[in-house]
Amino acid sequence: MTSAHNKKKLTGLVAATFTPFTADSELNLPVIGPYIDYLREKQGVNSIFVNGTTGESLSLTVKERKELAEEWCEKAKGKMDHVIVHVGSMSIKDSQDLAVHAANIGADGIAVITPSFFKPKTAEPLRLFLQQVASVAPNVPFYYYHLPAITGVNIAVRDVIDGIEELIPSFGGIKFSGIDLMDFSLCVSNKHSTWTLLYGIDEQLLPALVMGAQGAVGSTYNYAGCHINELLSAFEKGDLVQARKIQVRASLSWTGFDVGVNKQLMSDVSGLSLGPARLPLEPCSFSHAQSIKKKYHSIFS
Amino acid sequence: MTSAHNKKKLTGLVAATFTPFTADSELNLPVIGPYIDYLREKQGVNSIFVNGTTGESLSLTVKERKELAEEWCEKAKGKMDHVIVHVGSMSIKDSQDLAVHAANIGADGIAVITPSFFKPKTAEPLRLFLQQVASVAPNVPFYYYHLPAITGVNIAVRDVIDGIEELIPSFGGIKFSGIDLMDFSLCVSNKHSTWTLLYGIDEQLLPALVMGAQGAVGSTYNYAGCHINELLSAFEKGDLVQARKIQVRASLSWTGFDVGVNKQLMSDVSGLSLGPARLPLEPCSFSHAQSIKKKYHSIFS
Amino acid sequence: MTSAHNKKKLTGLVAATFTPFTADSELNLPVIGPYIDYLREKQGVNSIFVNGTTGESLSLTVKERKELAEEWCEKAKGKMDHVIVHVGSMSIKDSQDLAVHAANIGADGIAVITPSFFKPKTAEPLRLFLQQVASVAPNVPFYYYHLPAITGVNIAVRDVIDGIEELIPSFGGIKFSGIDLMDFSLCVSNKHSTWTLLYGIDEQLLPALVMGAQGAVGSTYNYAGCHINELLSAFEKGDLVQARKIQVRASLSWTGFDVGVNKQLMSDVSGLSLGPARLPLEPCSFSHAQSIKKKYHSIFS
Amino acid sequence: MTSAHNKKKLTGLVAATFTPFTADSELNLPVIGPYIDYLREKQGVNSIFVNGTTGESLSLTVKERKELAEEWCEKAKGKMDHVIVHVGSMSIKDSQDLAVHAANIGADGIAVITPSFFKPKTAEPLRLFLQQVASVAPNVPFYYYHLPAITGVNIAVRDVIDGIEELIPSFGGIKFSGIDLMDFSLCVSNKHSTWTLLYGIDEQLLPALVMGAQGAVGSTYNYAGCHINELLSAFEKGDLVQARKIQVRASLSWTGFDVGVNKQLMSDVSGLSLGPARLPLEPCSFSHAQSIKKKYHSIFS
Repeated sequence: MTSAHNKKKLTGLVAATFTPFTADSELNLPVIGPYIDYLREKQGVNSIFVNGTTGESLSLTVKERKELAEEWCEKAKGKMDHVIVHVGSMSIKDSQDLAVHAANIGADGIAVITPSFFKPKTAEPLRLFLQQVASVAPNVPFYYYHLPAITGVNIAVRDVIDGIEELIPSFGGIKFSGIDLMDFSLCVSNKHSTWTLLYGIDEQLLPALVMGAQGAVGSTYNYAGCHINELLSAFEKGDLVQARKIQVRASLSWTGFDVGVNKQLMSDVSGLSLGPARLPLEPCSFSHAQSIKKKYHSIFS
Repeated sequence: MTSAHNKKKLTGLVAATFTPFTADSELNLPVIGPYIDYLREKQGVNSIFVNGTTGESLSLTVKERKELAEEWCEKAKGKMDHVIVHVGSMSIKDSQDLAVHAANIGADGIAVITPSFFKPKTAEPLRLFLQQVASVAPNVPFYYYHLPAITGVNIAVRDVIDGIEELIPSFGGIKFSGIDLMDFSLCVSNKHSTWTLLYGIDEQLLPALVMGAQGAVGSTYNYAGCHINELLSAFEKGDLVQARKIQVRASLSWTGFDVGVNKQLMSDVSGLSLGPARLPLEPCSFSHAQSIKKKYHSIFS
Repeated sequence: MTSAHNKKKLTGLVAATFTPFTADSELNLPVIGPYIDYLREKQGVNSIFVNGTTGESLSLTVKERKELAEEWCEKAKGKMDHVIVHVGSMSIKDSQDLAVHAANIGADGIAVITPSFFKPKTAEPLRLFLQQVASVAPNVPFYYYHLPAITGVNIAVRDVIDGIEELIPSFGGIKFSGIDLMDFSLCVSNKHSTWTLLYGIDEQLLPALVMGAQGAVGSTYNYAGCHINELLSAFEKGDLVQARKIQVRASLSWTGFDVGVNKQLMSDVSGLSLGPARLPLEPCSFSHAQSIKKKYHSIFS
Repeated sequence: MTSAHNKKKLTGLVAATFTPFTADSELNLPVIGPYIDYLREKQGVNSIFVNGTTGESLSLTVKERKELAEEWCEKAKGKMDHVIVHVGSMSIKDSQDLAVHAANIGADGIAVITPSFFKPKTAEPLRLFLQQVASVAPNVPFYYYHLPAITGVNIAVRDVIDGIEELIPSFGGIKFSGIDLMDFSLCVSNKHSTWTLLYGIDEQLLPALVMGAQGAVGSTYNYAGCHINELLSAFEKGDLVQARKIQVRASLSWTGFDVGVNKQLMSDVSGLSLGPARLPLEPCSFSHAQSIKKKYHSIFS
């Protein structure tokens, strides 16, 4: 977090951080400081998205989410450009509580995922839900977080954000974690200059860049950020061949949307002790961990 | 709740209660007392399932859920045979917290729905999740709550409960809210004598009774319990023609799995002031409310 | 087929027959005669539904379907009460061609499955499709065949058949192969006296009988018809306990909706040589065949 | 078709042609000649994919498909570079029959869609199905046609084509009509030099080009080919901004995957008389036709 945020535009790679646990799935806050240093120094990642899906936020209590948010914001000071705190929840009250808290601790942005137990059937109740959360933290840029593969809610994002600046004056952008690039491109074509469209399917980043993504949020940037930064550079230089080569490599190392496996890979690559995922996620078996680690290193070195 | 619960076997109709809200979706606890009287006196319903899907539990905070559970248990004393408190949550920690609380306030049972943000892919992590919640309230009968249409988790229940008594000695039964009666019948054929299999798709109650359901939990028993009790009586007497007639009537009055609409119908039929549903559920429009009320009365009077 | 069909009401068990193939998946017509004798004499099954899903009709050419229909109708004369020929296809023209053919060879009924490549989104185009097929064979009772798990078309059957007698004067009933018994019961409550509602999920037959099914069509009646006839008898006598016992046994022997496996089991149980399923269905491996045969015999003897 | 095909590499836009019908949905073959001239002269499209999804092939009889294939091949002589005839069907026998026919009339390629009534669960039976069709026309380049949104079969294409050249020596490429660009990119990275990867979701063409698509097959190229050719040019020049602008315009004109609506738009834009779609597809209402025509012209002129 910069002291005067909003000055530096959010762009580039944003790591969707894992929540560090002890071996018995309790918070392991002391890992957060070194984690931030690692991202910055080893991966070239300067912004983070905390308490999201990768961070297992829905498996955490509100209290845990607050403790984590505080630690991330505190330790990121002067080190990270942007800390976006995800405050989405099944409960609008919990979301509001977390949004106020995030504002108080100086988060650079808040994000809300579609509620997914009671699934909105149309854009309207979803927009109202988002609006009522955003309104309690009116000075913090608000990001809508679209993740249909997990939420089961596949309302076109272009419909969700149509005229949203009137409902949510603090609207700041989208974490678009769906594979439908037509919908994404229609969001891009309608976007306001102050919005940031971040793409969230790491394996399709290059295609999304071509359609106008301004940055990317994802779990793989935790351990592969340095490589994907080269993809961004190649793309900026117009070297699509090189960019594609890196993108394919990233796809080859794909672990299959499993947070437990991904978390284990991050521990292995970074040397940080992030612990297992919490139930109902399954821990990654030792042999599987070995195999993905080996595969990863064969692809990226 | 009976003072010495576990004495009277859970059976018959269990109302999955709505959470009473004020007009602005805050808890309206004083309605709970009269609500219980209404169920008992006007609907002939003697057991309740609180803070479930109908009760919008996933849209509530942990604190709200505790306040509600306390009020339901308190007011049900001497009036209801069984109060089952649903303590399921996306977060295992919140579930454990709620389970301990439910035990402390004397709930007759606790129930846990499949976590549905991170969806278990096999029975194993789901069983571990359930086990870890049940274990903190070992003296309270534990019910597994299966609701695939909303959770998106459709692991065969027969696999979830296979040998579950070793993992969960307090296992008490299932709230089976799926339409797959083959799976249900295989659960019935494997059940222990101490388990209670409650069926939760109101529109298929009669078929489930034929396959061995010992009781039923549902939202429509709030306002149509008196009629469905006649279905139970007809079934017990072996009068399938009459039972089917009532079942068809219940199906004709089906409102379409919409808690907001259902809640409005309950307010209309009972005269209780239950308020609107909370976002992301949509309120029921006045005209729609009028139309379902009219339809309901034309069918059931 | 009785010489004067329509005299004997269609009721009881209807076997959805397999198409006999040689080892290289060509038609094996000579098996059909003994197949019919087997059904009648060993399984007590007196009606057949040919060229349906179990019969792999969609994997056959139109010419093959006609050859099969002719052989089934010819050999069934004087032996089977009803031969219903499925004439559904992705192509309305092929369906019409097959419907005219079925009428010419004296089929007792024709059935049409929902087209499923281009999936109708509402009841209206589906009703038009059915109407245009039925109209070319106006003197043959017409059955609508609902199989949402395979077609992916889950339009409520009650909407499909609402007022259908005006569109299709020859409408004769439904092969309802879905697990939604609410929809089924609403079809029952709206049925005309001349319609026959046949239920098609073998593992839920008893629940469907309770809701008013007049008969059943299924693949398992090929090899387990004699047992399920006892279920029907028990149900008629009001002995639900016994009926349920048999139903559970049928569910325990469930092979998982795999036509190749089911066909192999039929060959094993009956001694008829039905051959493998045709691609894209997979043949049943020898070891799997042994295992399901063993399981079947352990359950039903 | 060039007299010595295989000389000119298949590339650029391929129109997935509509099947011209009379007002009562019978074949209208005389429209085909002018249709080809229109594509070439007005849209700059030099290859066609006939009897595919846009061509409603699954709604046609085998005889109709042959008549159409003959007419398309005949009229395309000297005018089109490539005519790919889709020969996929639910029935492997019909597919083989059509494949032999296509070879005999000199088609430049044959394509087969995943069978979708009996859905292959793994790559293996699908590969066998494809292999058995390809083997009867061994001298014609064979294309696998992936369309998961309609077939419901979403087996990773990279698994389907892994080592496919050993099973199908004539393998020529893929019509990849899915939105999963990770899978697409992994197919690209594994492709043989003789294969052509054609992308089939028109609204995501630019992203697919970036990932290595060598051409595109789609229905919208019938009427918007001239505009999309500009997208291809811009992309080749490295002008991504212009390419994106055109791509967004194409997305804005999206009609929603409805062949009936799309066919009507083609009739309106081209002046060709293509007739309505055949049941179970619904005809496009006059008012809807007017509205999409107006929208289309407002976007592309």
